[in-house]
Amino acid sequence: MLPEWVFDENDRRLMREALEEAASAAARGEVPVGAVVSRGGTVLARAGNGREALHDPSAHAEILVMRRAGELLGDWRLDGCTLHVTLEPCPMCVTACRQARLDLVVWGAPDPRAGACGTVLDLAGDPRLGPPLAHRGGLMAAEATGLLRAFFAKRRESS
Amino acid sequence: MLPEWVFDENDRRLMREALEEAASAAARGEVPVGAVVSRGGTVLARAGNGREALHDPSAHAEILVMRRAGELLGDWRLDGCTLHVTLEPCPMCVTACRQARLDLVVWGAPDPRAGACGTVLDLAGDPRLGPPLAHRGGLMAAEATGLLRAFFAKRRESS
Repeated sequence: MLPEWVFDENDRRLMREALEEAASAAARGEVPVGAVVSRGGTVLARAGNGREALHDPSAHAEILVMRRAGELLGDWRLDGCTLHVTLEPCPMCVTACRQARLDLVVWGAPDPRAGACGTVLDLAGDPRLGPPLAHRGGLMAAEATGLLRAFFAKRRESS
Repeated sequence: MLPEWVFDENDRRLMREALEEAASAAARGEVPVGAVVSRGGTVLARAGNGREALHDPSAHAEILVMRRAGELLGDWRLDGCTLHVTLEPCPMCVTACRQARLDLVVWGAPDPRAGACGTVLDLAGDPRLGPPLAHRGGLMAAEATGLLRAFFAKRRESS
């Protein structure tokens, strides 16, 4: 987790788009996490969590947005690309980001349940898995956490 | 890695199907890894690695076969299902298997580069990530390794 002043206006703009994807996911009944992939500041792909609608255990926002970016670029190698995601990625998503060769991951709220960028474990920097994944966390964390809290509070009320 | 006598004829039949998927992947120019998802011994879905054709960094055989099984069952929760895969899963795939709540993963050859069932690291049993993933490795490892060796030898010759 880094202080907000580490991030620039470009990061904030991209994270706002990821937060919009998270809000859309909540409206569809999905755990609200959103992500965008950009290159040179231009958004290539955006996605929200789609596990419930797609019946796909791997359909986290990060996996879906990288798939879309790969389709667009015609290559699974996303060199030169950055991923902004509202929640700290889990071990599945961190490993996918490493394998996609992303330049950088910027994440929002820490995930005390499965965060693999240092909160629960650190898979981003594990040298046994090849070149480490560059990442910065903590951007607009309050907004991302707010969406998650509201979603789970509503789900508890209706169950 | 367990000795061959640990596995039964059912496991061998399912792993043979996974090996066929791996051989098909090689014929398409994909790194030869194959997987099947079954329930009560009946195959629900099968897939080979599809990263090159799909331009998808997450398109390992395990991710694709769980996606197909989820579509078929109409649920991302694959309780009661078993996954047979020719190569020890990487951290992305182990985490996806845990999140899918699979009953058991049976894998073939150990992966000295990214195996996350004990060879490079152990994410299957890590208690920080919730209930552990039950897995058994080493079934028909020689066949799985043979496919991988032949694929990379051929690629080196043609490059």
